[in-house]
Amino acid sequence: MTRAPFARWMGQTNDVTRTFLGAGQIPGLVNLGGGLPDPSTWPVAELSELARRAVADTPEQSLAYPPIEGLPALRDAIAARFSAPGLSLTRENVLIVSGGMQGLDLIGKVLLDEGGVVAAQSPAYLGALDAWRPRGPVYRPMRLQDDPDLHAALQGAQFAYAVPNFSNPSGRLVPTAQRRALVEAAQATGAWLVEDDPYGTLYYDSAPLPRMLTLSGDPEGPVIYMGTLSKELAPGFRVGWVIAAREMIEALALAKQGSDMCTAGLSQVIAAEALTSGLVDRCLPATLDLYRARRDALLGAMERDLAHAFRWERPAGGMFVWARARDPRLDTDALLAEGLEHGVCISPSSAFDPEGRDRGAVRLNFTLNTPERLKEGVRRLALAVEALTRRAA
Amino acid sequence: MTRAPFARWMGQTNDVTRTFLGAGQIPGLVNLGGGLPDPSTWPVAELSELARRAVADTPEQSLAYPPIEGLPALRDAIAARFSAPGLSLTRENVLIVSGGMQGLDLIGKVLLDEGGVVAAQSPAYLGALDAWRPRGPVYRPMRLQDDPDLHAALQGAQFAYAVPNFSNPSGRLVPTAQRRALVEAAQATGAWLVEDDPYGTLYYDSAPLPRMLTLSGDPEGPVIYMGTLSKELAPGFRVGWVIAAREMIEALALAKQGSDMCTAGLSQVIAAEALTSGLVDRCLPATLDLYRARRDALLGAMERDLAHAFRWERPAGGMFVWARARDPRLDTDALLAEGLEHGVCISPSSAFDPEGRDRGAVRLNFTLNTPERLKEGVRRLALAVEALTRRAA
Repeated sequence: MTRAPFARWMGQTNDVTRTFLGAGQIPGLVNLGGGLPDPSTWPVAELSELARRAVADTPEQSLAYPPIEGLPALRDAIAARFSAPGLSLTRENVLIVSGGMQGLDLIGKVLLDEGGVVAAQSPAYLGALDAWRPRGPVYRPMRLQDDPDLHAALQGAQFAYAVPNFSNPSGRLVPTAQRRALVEAAQATGAWLVEDDPYGTLYYDSAPLPRMLTLSGDPEGPVIYMGTLSKELAPGFRVGWVIAAREMIEALALAKQGSDMCTAGLSQVIAAEALTSGLVDRCLPATLDLYRARRDALLGAMERDLAHAFRWERPAGGMFVWARARDPRLDTDALLAEGLEHGVCISPSSAFDPEGRDRGAVRLNFTLNTPERLKEGVRRLALAVEALTRRAA
Repeated sequence: MTRAPFARWMGQTNDVTRTFLGAGQIPGLVNLGGGLPDPSTWPVAELSELARRAVADTPEQSLAYPPIEGLPALRDAIAARFSAPGLSLTRENVLIVSGGMQGLDLIGKVLLDEGGVVAAQSPAYLGALDAWRPRGPVYRPMRLQDDPDLHAALQGAQFAYAVPNFSNPSGRLVPTAQRRALVEAAQATGAWLVEDDPYGTLYYDSAPLPRMLTLSGDPEGPVIYMGTLSKELAPGFRVGWVIAAREMIEALALAKQGSDMCTAGLSQVIAAEALTSGLVDRCLPATLDLYRARRDALLGAMERDLAHAFRWERPAGGMFVWARARDPRLDTDALLAEGLEHGVCISPSSAFDPEGRDRGAVRLNFTLNTPERLKEGVRRLALAVEALTRRAA
């Protein structure tokens, strides 16, 4: 007998994320490929005490099944945090999810039938592509830097997908005028507008631009906003949130019920306390200082060792530098393999292309490593580029 | 403009689970409808200390992104716990999931294309139906109590689904011979065999029967075993596990990557410590004593107040009594509504039928309420039956 086969989408997947999570185990490797925070930013002593109290003082919240939509105290904290002049959010506009990835999965579940259209900022976050692959969508790439006709891009799409703050992988900041244009196109076409914002607090050089959620001025409007505690506090809690129209929150809650029933109560109690007590906000300035210095260290090393082979823009925030090879013959899938031989891991552009065709760029992370390690990683990457070029010649 | 519509499966769903989770908020209601553990069984002081130590002593495990497959220490603990003479499991046979529901969701993702066939024990756990609905499966009901031809039932199915220990909702214990027959049918037909076992430790009257996983004697065989900490320790951690062939674990991990990336690290560290330190096993005897007494109290009250209207089997474990109305005209969907008017919540059989047609039975939970409350709930339910019958006459 042969065993029943796997579902069709399983044959189309990539395993880049797993390679990266696994690469952390290779001794001596400089990992520029992932998107991990620096553990030194975590307030371990405070969180340990919060964890103890969450169980001891509120076991009926931390140990029981929480409501599918999330603990009321945490939903209220998120509603208050993201309300703004002209945007009054309530608990009913908030769904707590098990990390940002679950938000993406649930959005796919409630909006995508086979062949549904997604107008996606290009290049696109590979985790979003992973999350939606089982639903078989069709992608309509939006290259926002080329100032496309957004009304045409969104027409007939189930939703548009954008990471306006320091997009993964491009590091690009979508300007306010284009944010406004996206909101207007969504309002005009009826497409939902997914604003994925994991890096929204990681501005190193200026004050944050307004969210599309805020620009829409409508809690019941087309924007589906996604945030996460992973970058602001620590990823191990697996706490994120979706802010959207009540009908969308109800739909997502129905999908969540059949996905994991609810998000861990213990994590939610700690998250609510960390947000409302100010712990999250107190941690932010030191994190920004640390990451700004690392960005500058990476860019300095790239200027010295890689400027002959790549060009890039200086990101004003986030976690990544996106660099495109000057020589179109340089294959960055091959550079990933060659880099691992030289003790450095990068993310190739193919992982961020729904069709896997772009092999001309790399994404480099600067948040995880010290300036010294970043310099060493760039040095190794330059050696890998040289070896690859020499063999191709 | 009209807004982009929801995916098709959203129109076919039930919201019974949400009604139940919400019903907990109605003051004075006796909730016999859910499937919740009694909070008094939770070792709050020990868990509070474990939570504190998990963050303080191992922040790199509790606060970081864990590996997609789960923390090695927890995977090892599960492999050791479920190995048996003739069945040697390793870490590679184990995937940690965010509660049992996520295991069901992931199995659907990796095995079901639209129209894929599931041979499901009937009546079936409504959470499994929720989890698989977005994938559009076709159900082939297996009424195990009627001793069906299992080879025919599994032929051409992607997988069979059974809850052999005190099935939800029927409370039925599948005998060893039938477990063996299910394993043999899976081996012969190539169908996978999903053994969902949330109640496997809740035996009140005898020693546990062998798991189908154990009977198969093959870590690389057709059985996909699912367990959870929700009933053995506390549900708020959202920690469950899937034990299966390595190729299946790898496939499920790929699906998990696009679902929630990984399960909360803090929950996993606490779970590993609670399992390996013996805390889970130390809690079990008191839990069994508590639930056995409550089962007996519920059955006694039913004997007194409901025997004229329902018949049932005495469950030897688990959390539920499944009672079928003697009068086929009694509609248990109507009884749910009537019961809420009388201050009692039950689960109607329609929720456990993939086609929603069985309206002749109820599922009553006995783990959450004290014997006194159980008696009061049954008294109210009898009044609701009487009111419904009187109106129908």
